[in-house]
Amino acid sequence: VKFTLEQINERIGGKIEGDGAIEITSVGSITDAGVGQITFLANPCYIRNLSTSTASAIIIAPDIKPPKDKNLIIHENPSIAFMKAMELFCPAPRPVPHGIDKSASVDPGSEIDPAASIQAMAYVGPGTKIGAGTVVSPLSYIGEGCTLGQNCLIYPNVTILDGSQIGDNVIIHSSSVIGSDGYGYITVDDRHTKIPQNGIVVIEDDVEIGSNVSIDRARFDKTIIKQGVKIDNLVQIAHNVTIEKNCLVVAQCGISGSTEVGEASILAGQAGIGGHLKIGHHSVITAQSGLGKSIEPKSMFSGSPARPFQQEQRAKASVYKLPDLIKTVRALEKKVKELEEAAQVNQDT
Amino acid sequence: VKFTLEQINERIGGKIEGDGAIEITSVGSITDAGVGQITFLANPCYIRNLSTSTASAIIIAPDIKPPKDKNLIIHENPSIAFMKAMELFCPAPRPVPHGIDKSASVDPGSEIDPAASIQAMAYVGPGTKIGAGTVVSPLSYIGEGCTLGQNCLIYPNVTILDGSQIGDNVIIHSSSVIGSDGYGYITVDDRHTKIPQNGIVVIEDDVEIGSNVSIDRARFDKTIIKQGVKIDNLVQIAHNVTIEKNCLVVAQCGISGSTEVGEASILAGQAGIGGHLKIGHHSVITAQSGLGKSIEPKSMFSGSPARPFQQEQRAKASVYKLPDLIKTVRALEKKVKELEEAAQVNQDT
Amino acid sequence: VKFTLEQINERIGGKIEGDGAIEITSVGSITDAGVGQITFLANPCYIRNLSTSTASAIIIAPDIKPPKDKNLIIHENPSIAFMKAMELFCPAPRPVPHGIDKSASVDPGSEIDPAASIQAMAYVGPGTKIGAGTVVSPLSYIGEGCTLGQNCLIYPNVTILDGSQIGDNVIIHSSSVIGSDGYGYITVDDRHTKIPQNGIVVIEDDVEIGSNVSIDRARFDKTIIKQGVKIDNLVQIAHNVTIEKNCLVVAQCGISGSTEVGEASILAGQAGIGGHLKIGHHSVITAQSGLGKSIEPKSMFSGSPARPFQQEQRAKASVYKLPDLIKTVRALEKKVKELEEAAQVNQDT
Repeated sequence: VKFTLEQINERIGGKIEGDGAIEITSVGSITDAGVGQITFLANPCYIRNLSTSTASAIIIAPDIKPPKDKNLIIHENPSIAFMKAMELFCPAPRPVPHGIDKSASVDPGSEIDPAASIQAMAYVGPGTKIGAGTVVSPLSYIGEGCTLGQNCLIYPNVTILDGSQIGDNVIIHSSSVIGSDGYGYITVDDRHTKIPQNGIVVIEDDVEIGSNVSIDRARFDKTIIKQGVKIDNLVQIAHNVTIEKNCLVVAQCGISGSTEVGEASILAGQAGIGGHLKIGHHSVITAQSGLGKSIEPKSMFSGSPARPFQQEQRAKASVYKLPDLIKTVRALEKKVKELEEAAQVNQDT
Repeated sequence: VKFTLEQINERIGGKIEGDGAIEITSVGSITDAGVGQITFLANPCYIRNLSTSTASAIIIAPDIKPPKDKNLIIHENPSIAFMKAMELFCPAPRPVPHGIDKSASVDPGSEIDPAASIQAMAYVGPGTKIGAGTVVSPLSYIGEGCTLGQNCLIYPNVTILDGSQIGDNVIIHSSSVIGSDGYGYITVDDRHTKIPQNGIVVIEDDVEIGSNVSIDRARFDKTIIKQGVKIDNLVQIAHNVTIEKNCLVVAQCGISGSTEVGEASILAGQAGIGGHLKIGHHSVITAQSGLGKSIEPKSMFSGSPARPFQQEQRAKASVYKLPDLIKTVRALEKKVKELEEAAQVNQDT
Repeated sequence: VKFTLEQINERIGGKIEGDGAIEITSVGSITDAGVGQITFLANPCYIRNLSTSTASAIIIAPDIKPPKDKNLIIHENPSIAFMKAMELFCPAPRPVPHGIDKSASVDPGSEIDPAASIQAMAYVGPGTKIGAGTVVSPLSYIGEGCTLGQNCLIYPNVTILDGSQIGDNVIIHSSSVIGSDGYGYITVDDRHTKIPQNGIVVIEDDVEIGSNVSIDRARFDKTIIKQGVKIDNLVQIAHNVTIEKNCLVVAQCGISGSTEVGEASILAGQAGIGGHLKIGHHSVITAQSGLGKSIEPKSMFSGSPARPFQQEQRAKASVYKLPDLIKTVRALEKKVKELEEAAQVNQDT
């Protein structure tokens, strides 16, 4: 594949500075791209790489000072522009064969759309419906009474347990588990008796779920992941949780039972969220924070236990002044004692 | 299915207030249950939902002020009572076919009880014994020389590696791994040489293990999970760990090598426990804490590194007073300086 | 199997004290080993077990005071010495059958070395090359266009996705996922559009990867795990990360996108590393720390957000003095007020 910078820009709709006739054969990152490659600058961390890059062309934003002697495309959103450029050079994905692989184990009581793809050694249980364009990759398990919509992509070694309801355009990465039992016991004299977990998991359209994610079924009712939510790897979502539309849940987060995460909220990496809480919409919980109480919409919380971000920042910063503060207070104690003694002497004389 | 409130109460053994003849067709949570449904109040978080619930009946404890105009069952333990009610409405689990699915790969040198169920595309290695009533779900792997007792439920895509010994009534959820190698190397000049991990994992009766859990085999000897322990999702248990009876290990905890967790202890979510420690029985490590030393029985530790709970609470709370404290000390410094100067003047005159 | 202590020492090359003719039949840990077993002392935690051990022989270092009336091997490195002793007693691993199991699903367009072992119900995609001595265990998935070198051990239920390049002597434990998509979206008006993840994962020689690990493919270019790196269980490695040679990444760590971890660095358990950072070689990030900025070689950082270890230790320790410090400052305030009033009176008179 080979395109001139002008041909690429026709697709992108930016403004060329430099040689539009230069030939580009592939894409690369700002740190690595060389001759024949196009790259882009979106993250300010890499601004120092602009002048040293040997890439044949760079996509930059109009507010960036253009480097000298480089071929550029100036574009309002270099990330989106680069994504479009990348599509030019990406090989078309291998077409997926429709139908059921002969090594798959598919229950005769399931309904598989003829345009779905059930691949080698996949399992589909009775009463399960799978829509057109959906791919169940090798070695994945879809239990009994599930629904998968259209154009879903289920990677290998995924487990989707009985009763799960999954919408359209959902992507689930390998080793993730949808519908394991919620963690619920009644304890009498140290012995824990299992509380039946009879609910289901509902995953709406356009959700993406990373690898090694656990999403537990509800005790009754539903654990719900709403439209457009994106979940990273190794995330724990407990029973009866609701995640509203368009939330981002970053790697290794854990959300405890029955909590509701408001629309378009962001839970950063390794954050932990307590049970039975409400997180208002458009909130942010920073990385490694531990949220123990419900919070208002548009909140930003940080720390463990989490506090409002500004308060936490101020308190954390002041901790590092503490060793010096202790010295100051010791010195003050000494001086005050001297003043008291002097005053005593004064009074006595 | 349909029961009157009286019929339900016959099973529960509580005291009805209101209309015992009302018909109930299903169960629901306090926040969602409506007409025709029975619900319960156990968690005080939801007490505000009592008066607004449109559920046809509610199970509450005798110390809760009963809402007006509701049909109630008063019961000492609403959780247990509701669990019994729920069982009335739950469909009986699909009977599991005994025997070995023809697509499973079972070594002829294994011993499978005729009343066990080895399902589609499961693997069982040589020398492994599997007891009556135990289900090995599709796509699970049981290695060589393992023992699984009676009535175990092994979910799909589980991996149980060579030599693992598993008791009766054990539940293991999907994508969990029993018997991966412990993380042990001898390092000379930056190069890490693997220490052979030749021990096994022993899991006693009545243990439940969540999804995506890793339990490493011992270097030699055994990693042991004792009777009645309940482990949540995404937990890490390193080599040579011992978890005594009836412990609760909540999601995303990590326990380092050779540590012993005392009976009926609770490790809350995302807690990390150092290696070679002893945690006394009935101890609690709070969420996200990091324990770096051994602790006495009945301890409650918090923070990272963890300290006794009360001490940690007091210290954490005082941190948020620190920005004001710093201002106070600065003001004191100024005043003391003024007093010193005044005293100097006094002396000079 | 049975060896005299002298026969064992011939293999180890230490110095015997006590009865070299005593017969040893197996190995055990310092806390558990009894008659007929050999054990060792490497971790000072267990020095108290030396005198009470009933093991028939103990390997100790020359700087340890030898216990009375015990049969000993004195050796500079008891861990290595014990490892050699253990090998005497370990059963030889079951020989792995070469070739492709008839229940495996192997694409005819793949190249499998005749001395490789593709086991029951494993999947290998088109264009993939697998080297001599490499074992692909039951139920593992190797996608399209991958390369696996020689003598790799891929445990059951592993997923290696399209294009992954894996060197020689690599071990990957169960339920781990190599090459899931990086977590990358472009967000406009709360809606997240997936950024294609077209790069690959490269894993060099002698790497070991624990169970339930997620390693994401690069957006373009490569996510690289270099030679000799050892990764524990449940670790998250995001897209475009580079881990240099001989690093140790302990359980439940998370490394965010595009970060570079310098050679022979150690990331302790549950540590979180931000994105686009550079960690200098031979650095240490302590357990549960959260690193938010790049650090110099040979740094040791701790806390969340992480600070230099000494500074963090001092600050953390001082926090527990804070409740008392607050009392001291309150008392000082009172005294200073009294001094001021006295001074005022003085002046007035």
